[in-house]
Amino acid sequence: MSLSTRASGKLSKVIKCRAAVVWEVNQRFSIEEIEVDPPKAHEVRVKMVSTGLCHSDLSVKNGVMEFSNKFPQVPGHEGAGIVESVGEKVTKFKPGDHVIPLYAGQCLKCDFCKSGKTNTCEVSIKMQEGTAMIDGTSRLRCKGKMLYQFMSCGTFSEYTVVEDIALAKISNKAPLEKVCLIGCGIPTGYGAAVNAAKVKPGSKCAVWGLGGIGLAAVMGCKKAGASEVWGIDINPAKFDLARKFGCTHFANPNDYKGRKFADVLLELTKGGFDYTFECAGQIATMRQAVDSSHRAWGRTTLVGIATFSQDLNVFPFDLICGRSIGGTFFGSYQAVESVPKLVDEYLNNELMVDDFITHTFKLEQINEGFDLMIKGGCLRSIVIF
Amino acid sequence: MSLSTRASGKLSKVIKCRAAVVWEVNQRFSIEEIEVDPPKAHEVRVKMVSTGLCHSDLSVKNGVMEFSNKFPQVPGHEGAGIVESVGEKVTKFKPGDHVIPLYAGQCLKCDFCKSGKTNTCEVSIKMQEGTAMIDGTSRLRCKGKMLYQFMSCGTFSEYTVVEDIALAKISNKAPLEKVCLIGCGIPTGYGAAVNAAKVKPGSKCAVWGLGGIGLAAVMGCKKAGASEVWGIDINPAKFDLARKFGCTHFANPNDYKGRKFADVLLELTKGGFDYTFECAGQIATMRQAVDSSHRAWGRTTLVGIATFSQDLNVFPFDLICGRSIGGTFFGSYQAVESVPKLVDEYLNNELMVDDFITHTFKLEQINEGFDLMIKGGCLRSIVIF
Repeated sequence: MSLSTRASGKLSKVIKCRAAVVWEVNQRFSIEEIEVDPPKAHEVRVKMVSTGLCHSDLSVKNGVMEFSNKFPQVPGHEGAGIVESVGEKVTKFKPGDHVIPLYAGQCLKCDFCKSGKTNTCEVSIKMQEGTAMIDGTSRLRCKGKMLYQFMSCGTFSEYTVVEDIALAKISNKAPLEKVCLIGCGIPTGYGAAVNAAKVKPGSKCAVWGLGGIGLAAVMGCKKAGASEVWGIDINPAKFDLARKFGCTHFANPNDYKGRKFADVLLELTKGGFDYTFECAGQIATMRQAVDSSHRAWGRTTLVGIATFSQDLNVFPFDLICGRSIGGTFFGSYQAVESVPKLVDEYLNNELMVDDFITHTFKLEQINEGFDLMIKGGCLRSIVIF
Repeated sequence: MSLSTRASGKLSKVIKCRAAVVWEVNQRFSIEEIEVDPPKAHEVRVKMVSTGLCHSDLSVKNGVMEFSNKFPQVPGHEGAGIVESVGEKVTKFKPGDHVIPLYAGQCLKCDFCKSGKTNTCEVSIKMQEGTAMIDGTSRLRCKGKMLYQFMSCGTFSEYTVVEDIALAKISNKAPLEKVCLIGCGIPTGYGAAVNAAKVKPGSKCAVWGLGGIGLAAVMGCKKAGASEVWGIDINPAKFDLARKFGCTHFANPNDYKGRKFADVLLELTKGGFDYTFECAGQIATMRQAVDSSHRAWGRTTLVGIATFSQDLNVFPFDLICGRSIGGTFFGSYQAVESVPKLVDEYLNNELMVDDFITHTFKLEQINEGFDLMIKGGCLRSIVIF
């Protein structure tokens, strides 16, 4: 502990702790002792309690999310923890607060935040693209090198530092080893249905990819009063669990080889889905989602992130006849105000969280956790620090 | 006049008249004497007074609109006329009524019509795809051959027969030699802005393709209170006229060769358009419209119909970040009730119609009219019978 700074009237020092570092693209996670600097003005240092393993962490490790191709890096963006110390000018947080870092932070001052039309923030975009703090630097270091922080979070570390515009204070009644999922997966899928698509009661919906995001979308469709929620996955083992979240029907593309799967779905649903949600992050399934939506009013919402090197092809006349395509980032939630509310909904038994968690790991087992994800063997895995 | 039938208590006979016939794909229009059968039950025979020349008529002639690749055919779908006779069971129309045929008819009984979510009708789709009456036959014949009727209309004929679900009765004060444009071009573009995209006051909009549809979209943006309406066209001669309809800014892609045009527009608008409208019917300009819309909330509305052989490619991550794409058919208007209202708006000087009409032709000059369209020498040309 060599550096120190005065934060909120208290001496704040460099912390040495463990983190999962990706040194180079495509390399496995390496558990390292790192140094975490004290928070600067408007920054907050958080002791992480848990962090979810999200497919986007795998994508960044594998170089798929081009804007974050910066290494060495500490991935992780779906965490929950306790404020350890705060930098100058931080007014909304104090040590001991229970918090969730927000990769979709809100400065509340930029044109995007003030527009009321989006949950994205110009400052947050800069942070996401910088894979760092607002000023482009990081508070994490290892072996003399700056460690980039994925989505300006970097929650695969026992301690991390985030901007105060990118943090939500939550109820201290919430179990921190679980609500990390409200930092990404659950709002992303759930909000896709209830916020972005605004599913109407009685609708027919379909969700591609029954992982954590997909099942959260299923849960959102159910909450919105959909009459049918179809789960689409090539792994039939996922269907039983999906029922618990609200799936009413299932379809496996592999059961209809030799036919255009969208045509099968149009036939099975007698005209297509009112709302489709692509949560698999595949170009081919995006096209299926568009083509199996109702020809006159079907709305496709893209949720999963595909490889950046591929475009989605659509037939423009279909759009003229009534289909439409949009997408959603963090479930179109205004994160600062919504994350605490979602935590409260969970505490009031209005939102399922526990059922998403199928596996927990220690930090040093993080590679096992991602191996399991690749095999499709888990729903959501969580690292408990 | 060899056939006769009893319609509405009066003897209705086959009428011999002139029509512009396309005998084979890609051939020029041939002016022929044709036979027009009396209207059957729920059908209405209309004496056409005028018909607009729309790019879709050219497209069908050239085989671009695959679903209508049926010949010999009488194109034309943007007409105005007077009811000559009605078939049995027709209750809403009588001889002498001033009418506009509707290619976007409404049966008001199908699931689409009853949904309240779309202006498309299952029966109308069948008619459009059949290029004929509901029963798949036509009332137009020439040299012993059935003549398909484009979009179930076939208004390039002195007389035609349409279904009573595909006809709007309009004020008899409206000049029939002008309001034919309310049968297609004007609602299609105008409604794209006010109905489909629902442009909000103070928005920045852009319209690709400053033909009749595009200028109607410009007019819709202005009506909705847009603060900026950019006209995008490669023909700078169109810019002066466009100003009259509400264009505030202009951009010609050819002035920025060597740069990605969407990037130029993002720069010029400091962040992109709130709403973009593609009225040129080109895949490349569709992509420009998507890519120059605001990254966090830009809405692209496709209006122009591109060749059916090409897909539109989009970058899916852009949709996740906030862009969306939809389209519109007949300006998303419920045609039966809206067309008479639009005619009234015109009569009340709330809707420009006259300024769209730059040229009039006789039926026998129809090829000249389309030649002029191809050259970009007209805004809207009308055939006066």
